[in-house]
Amino acid sequence: MERHFHERLDKLNKKVLEMASMAEEAIFKATESLKNNDTALADWVIENDKKIDEMENTIEAMVIDLLALQQPMAKDLRFITTGMKVNAELERIADLATNIAKCVLFVAHQPKLKPPEDIPRLFILAKDMVKKAVNAFVERNRELAKEVIQSDEEADMLRTKIQEELVKNYMSEDKTLIPRAISMFLAARHYERICDHATNIAEDVIFMIDARVVKHHPEILESGENDGK
Amino acid sequence: MERHFHERLDKLNKKVLEMASMAEEAIFKATESLKNNDTALADWVIENDKKIDEMENTIEAMVIDLLALQQPMAKDLRFITTGMKVNAELERIADLATNIAKCVLFVAHQPKLKPPEDIPRLFILAKDMVKKAVNAFVERNRELAKEVIQSDEEADMLRTKIQEELVKNYMSEDKTLIPRAISMFLAARHYERICDHATNIAEDVIFMIDARVVKHHPEILESGENDGK
Repeated sequence: MERHFHERLDKLNKKVLEMASMAEEAIFKATESLKNNDTALADWVIENDKKIDEMENTIEAMVIDLLALQQPMAKDLRFITTGMKVNAELERIADLATNIAKCVLFVAHQPKLKPPEDIPRLFILAKDMVKKAVNAFVERNRELAKEVIQSDEEADMLRTKIQEELVKNYMSEDKTLIPRAISMFLAARHYERICDHATNIAEDVIFMIDARVVKHHPEILESGENDGK
Repeated sequence: MERHFHERLDKLNKKVLEMASMAEEAIFKATESLKNNDTALADWVIENDKKIDEMENTIEAMVIDLLALQQPMAKDLRFITTGMKVNAELERIADLATNIAKCVLFVAHQPKLKPPEDIPRLFILAKDMVKKAVNAFVERNRELAKEVIQSDEEADMLRTKIQEELVKNYMSEDKTLIPRAISMFLAARHYERICDHATNIAEDVIFMIDARVVKHHPEILESGENDGK
């Protein structure tokens, strides 16, 4: 029973990792479609989201089964409930990739707009934060989780800068740019929200490791108290 | 033990209801601040969100305790895990109310803009969907949950209409209106996302009642198969 249980935990771990790869692929392809005004790729991202939704349901069913059949205690319980939350966050991340793809379709009939230069920086940040947050979960790595949480401020800063630039240098300068600038404005917002969800995952990972809630309590991280005491 | 357990489930139910009232109050006050360009009220919504975050943590700790100490089976387990998810959705709904309040602050230094007339309709829809979704959870009412899911399409439609009007009749007509129109554009998006979260709650409630996953499977609802078979 004990061995069988750990095999099932391991299987959950692997499924979450598979879900993460799918979400990361969605972000990457949505970004490519945005860069190149590639509507076929944007369609692919939107269509493929159904598979990610299915995967969310599969993982959720695994979690409920584990909780019902195995009656896990303390540490294992925290791992399983965290897996359930990470799963939900990844599904939302994939949804946001879909939203980015929809931004492409929204203005696909118009010529491509040169994006503000911070857009690629925000995309790279989002991609890295998701990767690190998932690795922090899989490796139970507190330091990696802390790095993710600390990057969230940069994401907010980049988004604000991009949005101000779009209003000032694009929309206000030339009203024919408004729909495309809004599409870019929303894309920036979606990337920043991907970073928020990566941060949520990181906070959940720290709870899993330390049994301490850092969500809504950034001061715990800043005080450096999170060394397992 | 059995009686004590049901008292604790009841306590969880009550706490979720309390969390829901706080989220509904946040939506209501954010909307009032938007209507009247009332920055003091917007500040209140943002400040008060900390209490809602605390409440989320409290409920999550209750859920983990219940799962660890009581080892619930089947139906109770679904109620507890659904409570955990409803709790997370309500926290996000309150965050969106905070985002609406931030839209008010973003353009507070400029004269109030007359909003598109569908904005109040979208607000009322969002408020009703949240109320119904929470009632569906508390009363374990499948019909109410189905109503919520069916309203989601109207929310999407209203948001699209509002956003098109803002681009066409506001931003493109007068560039000095752009920042205020964008603030309204985002507010419409936040209301529509509140409706999305209410829909998520309703889908979780149907899973709790029927042990059937309708999330990402609207066709199950449409086929009318959800009568407990």
